Amino acid sequence: MAIRLGANQYGKAETRLVTVRRDGEQHQLTDLNVSTSLRGDLAASHLDGDNRHVVPTDTQKNTVFAFAKQAPVGEIEDFALRLGRHFVGSFDYITGARILIDSYGWSRIPVDGQPHPHSFFRSSDEKRTTAVTVQDEQAWVVSGLRDLIVLKSTGSEFHGYPKDRYTTLPETTDRVLATAVTARWRFAHLDVDWAASFPSVRATLLQAFANTHSLALQQTLYAMGEAVLTTHPDIAEVRLSLPNKHHFTVDLEPFGLDNPNEVFFAADRPYGLIEGSVLRDDAPEEGLAWHTLAAF
Amino acid sequence: MAIRLGANQYGKAETRLVTVRRDGEQHQLTDLNVSTSLRGDLAASHLDGDNRHVVPTDTQKNTVFAFAKQAPVGEIEDFALRLGRHFVGSFDYITGARILIDSYGWSRIPVDGQPHPHSFFRSSDEKRTTAVTVQDEQAWVVSGLRDLIVLKSTGSEFHGYPKDRYTTLPETTDRVLATAVTARWRFAHLDVDWAASFPSVRATLLQAFANTHSLALQQTLYAMGEAVLTTHPDIAEVRLSLPNKHHFTVDLEPFGLDNPNEVFFAADRPYGLIEGSVLRDDAPEEGLAWHTLAAF
Amino acid sequence: MAIRLGANQYGKAETRLVTVRRDGEQHQLTDLNVSTSLRGDLAASHLDGDNRHVVPTDTQKNTVFAFAKQAPVGEIEDFALRLGRHFVGSFDYITGARILIDSYGWSRIPVDGQPHPHSFFRSSDEKRTTAVTVQDEQAWVVSGLRDLIVLKSTGSEFHGYPKDRYTTLPETTDRVLATAVTARWRFAHLDVDWAASFPSVRATLLQAFANTHSLALQQTLYAMGEAVLTTHPDIAEVRLSLPNKHHFTVDLEPFGLDNPNEVFFAADRPYGLIEGSVLRDDAPEEGLAWHTLAAF
Amino acid sequence: MAIRLGANQYGKAETRLVTVRRDGEQHQLTDLNVSTSLRGDLAASHLDGDNRHVVPTDTQKNTVFAFAKQAPVGEIEDFALRLGRHFVGSFDYITGARILIDSYGWSRIPVDGQPHPHSFFRSSDEKRTTAVTVQDEQAWVVSGLRDLIVLKSTGSEFHGYPKDRYTTLPETTDRVLATAVTARWRFAHLDVDWAASFPSVRATLLQAFANTHSLALQQTLYAMGEAVLTTHPDIAEVRLSLPNKHHFTVDLEPFGLDNPNEVFFAADRPYGLIEGSVLRDDAPEEGLAWHTLAAF
Repeated sequence: MAIRLGANQYGKAETRLVTVRRDGEQHQLTDLNVSTSLRGDLAASHLDGDNRHVVPTDTQKNTVFAFAKQAPVGEIEDFALRLGRHFVGSFDYITGARILIDSYGWSRIPVDGQPHPHSFFRSSDEKRTTAVTVQDEQAWVVSGLRDLIVLKSTGSEFHGYPKDRYTTLPETTDRVLATAVTARWRFAHLDVDWAASFPSVRATLLQAFANTHSLALQQTLYAMGEAVLTTHPDIAEVRLSLPNKHHFTVDLEPFGLDNPNEVFFAADRPYGLIEGSVLRDDAPEEGLAWHTLAAF
Repeated sequence: MAIRLGANQYGKAETRLVTVRRDGEQHQLTDLNVSTSLRGDLAASHLDGDNRHVVPTDTQKNTVFAFAKQAPVGEIEDFALRLGRHFVGSFDYITGARILIDSYGWSRIPVDGQPHPHSFFRSSDEKRTTAVTVQDEQAWVVSGLRDLIVLKSTGSEFHGYPKDRYTTLPETTDRVLATAVTARWRFAHLDVDWAASFPSVRATLLQAFANTHSLALQQTLYAMGEAVLTTHPDIAEVRLSLPNKHHFTVDLEPFGLDNPNEVFFAADRPYGLIEGSVLRDDAPEEGLAWHTLAAF
Repeated sequence: MAIRLGANQYGKAETRLVTVRRDGEQHQLTDLNVSTSLRGDLAASHLDGDNRHVVPTDTQKNTVFAFAKQAPVGEIEDFALRLGRHFVGSFDYITGARILIDSYGWSRIPVDGQPHPHSFFRSSDEKRTTAVTVQDEQAWVVSGLRDLIVLKSTGSEFHGYPKDRYTTLPETTDRVLATAVTARWRFAHLDVDWAASFPSVRATLLQAFANTHSLALQQTLYAMGEAVLTTHPDIAEVRLSLPNKHHFTVDLEPFGLDNPNEVFFAADRPYGLIEGSVLRDDAPEEGLAWHTLAAF
Repeated sequence: MAIRLGANQYGKAETRLVTVRRDGEQHQLTDLNVSTSLRGDLAASHLDGDNRHVVPTDTQKNTVFAFAKQAPVGEIEDFALRLGRHFVGSFDYITGARILIDSYGWSRIPVDGQPHPHSFFRSSDEKRTTAVTVQDEQAWVVSGLRDLIVLKSTGSEFHGYPKDRYTTLPETTDRVLATAVTARWRFAHLDVDWAASFPSVRATLLQAFANTHSLALQQTLYAMGEAVLTTHPDIAEVRLSLPNKHHFTVDLEPFGLDNPNEVFFAADRPYGLIEGSVLRDDAPEEGLAWHTLAAF
């Protein structure tokens, strides 16, 4: 019986890169969290501590900073592709790279009704994300968003489910539906207008959430994925992870009060968790697009 | 030598109350985190486990939910005053109450350019806060905000400071200034239009941050407090806690690149922490307004 | 072009189950975080909101609590297998289940040198974990641990790595090596003494970390995995995710002080991240053991 | 009406200092989180951005690192006193300092039954703390601990409380009592054996928690404080903040099962919060000991 090294990768996680670009008085702000991972002929380092193939994670971090100066960062998908191709192209023994980027949104502070040229506030806790994989000559882009918290105060039902001896949940035709959206969408190719694509997908997800009269969070999940695929031909697959953030109607009867869906308790744990993929029949092979990403 | 009970309070922390109010098709959403604490003649419980004066924290929670049904929640200051006065007014031995409320902001999801009547997204991680103290017949209101993250990409200097053998920081006439604002402001009286006051104070804080050419974060802190007091006569005092979220200019020289304040590393720890109070000379006595609140 | 549902699962996440078992005066405490996910013929719920196959997540939670009463919880692997087999065995359309359990450790409070029969303190933030997958008649067990923070104050080197124009890291023959171990190990079969296995694997991981003179964190990772496989024939594969928690030697020269690896700054971000799998050549097929788990 | 600067302080928060001391082969590890704040004649910085009195927070951080080299760190109370007195003693305009230190615990990894000389694991998430205030020639020490999570599986009752229309809580003579202890104790003077004092106070708190048959968490709080004061004459006051981490008995009746306090749901929010001070009648004046610390 022999023991051997299996799949592996290493890199620098969470390099917090902020850039300021000056267009005269007007400043443009970019705020990113960049994680790089390299793959390749790395057995010697694991087996013998021979680091001749180990591009240091510190060098990876330096490269992120230097690249941000050598050319404008631009869209996160482009920046990730540049970084991934650099690492794979620069070292024979590095054959693959996975670049994760989260982007934080900032808005200009309004002063006397005008957006200030160089003062900003963090507009939300939501992140725009990308996960780019480069392997030899190939590349895959999976973009997405995290921490987009949404809620419908009506238009959600849940009934018709199987009952067994452990079932106590009453059926309902009107409940609050709330979730924190994690979405990732895989592009069918790389010839995409990244700047236009992201806000369009995000708006589509939000609209589908709002417009779907929901009989199950699963139905909402599918509707959100389907809406994105229908309107975005360059997207091959959408994966969604939707925690069901329960809002329980408080029983006010002991206090002589009715509660027709007006007063809710927002619970923390446990929570439902609905996860799934929606994809085209003719989607190109996923290849390494999802390799080592969280499943949903 | 005798041992005795000193100051104390007890209550229910972080009751997560969400309410939906229906104006026909249009729903109004309120999302609060409510913490109640009671004070009074509570020695017997501590010394003997005699709970005759201990209004259960579970009852406090129930009261929060019931009050949300008995009348519209309204502004958080009003809701907190109602709750505090209820507890102090209902039980002889409960002579004081402190009610803390955090409010989360939600926006309507735009669908075909129109705000949806009952679908929302969490607009920010920022919280509007209030801390109301009731003692016998008196009451104090301290309102505020938390997690308002702001950044100026220029217009900030830092120099002229003392040097000793441990000083290595270079002086600068241009740096990024970023902070996460925690602000609390004490009202001089309770005859306030709470709904109008909060957005006005918030806008004033933001404008002062943006407009102040900063020679020190201390100067910005004072300017923010002063601006609020100048424009809001019903506010007696402003306390601010401003972490200096350092953005370090990355040294790109080793890579043959200059870096005229374009590429920054956003650091986590350690961070500067600037805290202070700005108040009117003729501010009324603070009484118990700040009692048991975090200092800044 | 048609759009279709891909892989999916749903369940109840983070049911916080605490049990007390009384052996006379002596109480036994179990503290678990249980997440259940079901898989199967769930298309109708996604496409039409037809929930006839959707065993509610609320029922899943109830089942966790009821099972904890119907028989002693026992080892988390056994409890997870019981739960997974119950769901797959009880509903024709539910063909798969994934049960994740985290276990928190508690120790008895010492009173006059004796362990107290029913008073405990949380002994650590480390969690023992299991991820059990059941599919039809098959089952896989992947156990592990999280948040085991370890540090070597010497016995770690890093040099011999490639240099490019972005390299600034100096080579070192003595550094602090620290990491927070996330480990998962897949069992080759299910005929395992779970109670004995966990502490033995944990001790092996710790010993290998301590005993390995490290030329790279990759080498330490492999040594840890190899040590587990060598000493535990029922384990087929070990996956490790090791953040390199950098401890930088502080430059004290400006203050006229040397610093021969005595004073360090513990950095938060960015951090190295070394991930890999170590496995036997004759390991049985992994099947669904890792399906939807985080990659490392 | 004039506006003026009130109380203020500024400093460097959360300097993560790790030191290694070598006693031959045997290494000693210290892992601290140090926050320094200075007070004094700081109006010019706030009002005019004149920084002649502003010892940079960067210098404060450097001083922490340099002091860790110039002499062994020793007990955190001593280290904090050294730092505080340095700042107040070195700059005329700095008249006060508050030094907060959290200390993380590490244990040696056992290898073949022997503690390893230079390999460690983080033994707990609990922190030992100190808050030292220096003002001119005076100094106060308030030490403590945080995140000590404890649980009694019996020996806790709660009944006899007042009922009103909002009361639904059933009385109980047997419940689980769990809390995460935050404790701070003020010393009557500075002539203390810090190394001996901390473990002794900690053990006393734990024993009092375990030994108190609790009729209310308030009673347990007082018993814990009283036990510390009775056995530690150099401590003048103990302040405790005890969240009541509710463990609800799960209703298993719908499943035909009884539940005599065996199966519990550990809830997150809301939680009770019991806070109080226990002190000696002849305690010396608290002076600035608690100034700007959280109330409990």
